[in-house]
Amino acid sequence: MSDASSNDHVAGGDRAVGGEEPATSHGVSRRGLLGWALGSGVAGLAVGGGAVAAVTAASASTPGDVAFAFEGAHQAGITTPVQEHLHFASFDMMPRASRDDLISLLQDWSYAAARMVKGLDVSASGAVGGSPEAPPDDTGEAQGLGAAGLTLTFGLGPGLFDADGDRFGIADRRPRALADLPAFLGDALDAARSGGDLCIQACADDPQVAVHAIRNLSRIAFGRARLRWSQLGFGRTSRTAADQQTPRNLFGFKDGTANILADDEEALRAHVWTTADDGPSWMAGGSYLVARKIAMLIETWDRLRLSEQDRTIGREKGSGAPLSGGDEFTEPSFRGGKIDERSHVRLAHPTVNDGVRILRRGYNYVDGNDDLGTLDAGLFFLSYQRDPAQFIGIQKRLATDLMSEYIRHIGSGIWAVPPGASKGSYVGAGLFS
Amino acid sequence: MSDASSNDHVAGGDRAVGGEEPATSHGVSRRGLLGWALGSGVAGLAVGGGAVAAVTAASASTPGDVAFAFEGAHQAGITTPVQEHLHFASFDMMPRASRDDLISLLQDWSYAAARMVKGLDVSASGAVGGSPEAPPDDTGEAQGLGAAGLTLTFGLGPGLFDADGDRFGIADRRPRALADLPAFLGDALDAARSGGDLCIQACADDPQVAVHAIRNLSRIAFGRARLRWSQLGFGRTSRTAADQQTPRNLFGFKDGTANILADDEEALRAHVWTTADDGPSWMAGGSYLVARKIAMLIETWDRLRLSEQDRTIGREKGSGAPLSGGDEFTEPSFRGGKIDERSHVRLAHPTVNDGVRILRRGYNYVDGNDDLGTLDAGLFFLSYQRDPAQFIGIQKRLATDLMSEYIRHIGSGIWAVPPGASKGSYVGAGLFS
Repeated sequence: MSDASSNDHVAGGDRAVGGEEPATSHGVSRRGLLGWALGSGVAGLAVGGGAVAAVTAASASTPGDVAFAFEGAHQAGITTPVQEHLHFASFDMMPRASRDDLISLLQDWSYAAARMVKGLDVSASGAVGGSPEAPPDDTGEAQGLGAAGLTLTFGLGPGLFDADGDRFGIADRRPRALADLPAFLGDALDAARSGGDLCIQACADDPQVAVHAIRNLSRIAFGRARLRWSQLGFGRTSRTAADQQTPRNLFGFKDGTANILADDEEALRAHVWTTADDGPSWMAGGSYLVARKIAMLIETWDRLRLSEQDRTIGREKGSGAPLSGGDEFTEPSFRGGKIDERSHVRLAHPTVNDGVRILRRGYNYVDGNDDLGTLDAGLFFLSYQRDPAQFIGIQKRLATDLMSEYIRHIGSGIWAVPPGASKGSYVGAGLFS
Repeated sequence: MSDASSNDHVAGGDRAVGGEEPATSHGVSRRGLLGWALGSGVAGLAVGGGAVAAVTAASASTPGDVAFAFEGAHQAGITTPVQEHLHFASFDMMPRASRDDLISLLQDWSYAAARMVKGLDVSASGAVGGSPEAPPDDTGEAQGLGAAGLTLTFGLGPGLFDADGDRFGIADRRPRALADLPAFLGDALDAARSGGDLCIQACADDPQVAVHAIRNLSRIAFGRARLRWSQLGFGRTSRTAADQQTPRNLFGFKDGTANILADDEEALRAHVWTTADDGPSWMAGGSYLVARKIAMLIETWDRLRLSEQDRTIGREKGSGAPLSGGDEFTEPSFRGGKIDERSHVRLAHPTVNDGVRILRRGYNYVDGNDDLGTLDAGLFFLSYQRDPAQFIGIQKRLATDLMSEYIRHIGSGIWAVPPGASKGSYVGAGLFS
């Protein structure tokens, strides 16, 4: 538990007025924090060993009733069936924040997350359950929407480990693999949309539920960490379950056909989950998350003739089948010259990447339009891998593919995603023990 | 039908290469345009007289199957059950565009819209159905998603009627009621997010379907009109049917409790639909649309104590009941002093607005965050009324309510929304006949 006296920032200026349940300095009611210390304070849902358990209310009649457990061997939101909506947020620790602040933040976030993924308010005092003379603990806009399949996945950025004076005391625990990504050919990165000390990936089947989660977690962070950038997304561009249709990206092509599926334990072990042997031990059962904001030059793309679009991707736009024949799920054949050597499907394929695969979880985005009347749109790419070297190797090749003429990587980030929290603990606990 | 030779802008630079079905200068295949001339070219769905008919496929099993007819006495998207997602777009006519360009644009838009609301591609050539040597007519990202309850509602801005030299030849048909809105107390409008010669409101239950529609309609407009600004929204903040739950805005309050419902014919006649007596005759059965982008100062709001939030709105946050007692649907009583004189509910109420009501159709928005780490979020307010004076009167009062301390109006627009297209015609046809 953090020492509240170490923080003089008060989330609610009106809270001094009184009330039966005064808020702490961290914006979560004391009952909430005590609740965290005693376990999550709510009757637990069953959690499967190893895999994240999908929990559906016995009388589930609406999507709002679908809920995923927060605790488990791995964090939810990686192999969970990809939800329809994303709100991704990157945070920086405040300049003077301490190790205690970082620990208490991860504790408070885990406490609130474990409640929100059940469709509950961030604390027992909620949006209207506290004193009328205090600001509500929960902002309230997700009242009545249920869990809506919400998952909250937390990551730790490289900056935490090389903070000035090692103020978080974790420099010697830095994973070898956690380093800023190298520059790739064609990168056009905007620092304001890149990096961050911490990240939260909120996925849900209702955008308001995802937005509510990021908003309230930002609020809880007050004084300790600050939102650096955030991104909304829709129309998942991958699938993690065999019964999910392959969605289409904003180039109109099916995307994610060959993704690693949640039930492919062997591929997950080989390509997604970090092991104790990989080191450090606190990352065993975790993964590395790479985010890339990829702007699409859709006006240019839209003027390409169909055959050229197909050649660029290496697949048929309509069916998603590789140009070498078959249907969407037929393995592409790179002999016979039907698939261009520089096509996206070939340069992304494991056969030209030493067998390497990654688990993708991207979303389409539209952020309005630019001054020329072109939609500001593209793909918010997210991938999970056992080692960032997997992404780096693939991206080095993809930076030279035919598709790279029609896209620009404008944002980038990398985070270590610790294993799931155990009951009564918090995400990242192993880093501090 | 427009004179294609009057436009030398070609949407697809590669189209000259060849193909069995060459595209016109307007980015819709000739088969498409001929299809428009002959009626929509697809077996028609039943359209109710006066009201928009909801058409559901006989075997409807997913939300994608819900479809609304495009043609009808009124445009769809006004009294249609409010969908979950919005993509709103404002366009300006190109500086040299002519009357013929405006007519052909409205024709092409109506043709494509009538197809898309059925879940079809923008033309029969579609995303993959044309020549491989031509750019596809449809961008393809909505393939397989169905109609998803898509409605497309078109509006005409004041600027069309006072264009230089009356180049659209419609100055004498300008509705008296169609004028730029007056300045309101506290307005902080950004011209780049305000106004526009034309608007399209795309609502759907799948955001990718709404985005696909705006993108393709923008593409069809190439050379004639250009996207000026656009806005995505989610989490409808009103209801138009008694069986719709009242959603919550980003202040956490239920919003739209007292909205005009689609089956309240008397209220629709009194407050929403323009009549022949109102004039001009081409607007009979139409309505006036006001859009306001309202930023919420959510960090400030979130620090208000619950009792102050309730007082500001005049309702209980949890139940939505007026502070004068009862439940959400109880009429508020402004006697007895339980509801503040400057509360939002009182100053918006018909009893202090000479009985005036408006039909609301707003959406929440989140556009990332600002440099200070605060979410850039709020309400994209949309309302339909028989005369803009209804909105103006109410907004004059609301600009002084307690809530106005926590919001900023940053975008604004007004458009005349013509009646629905009749079979084989197009939206706005009456203006040019």
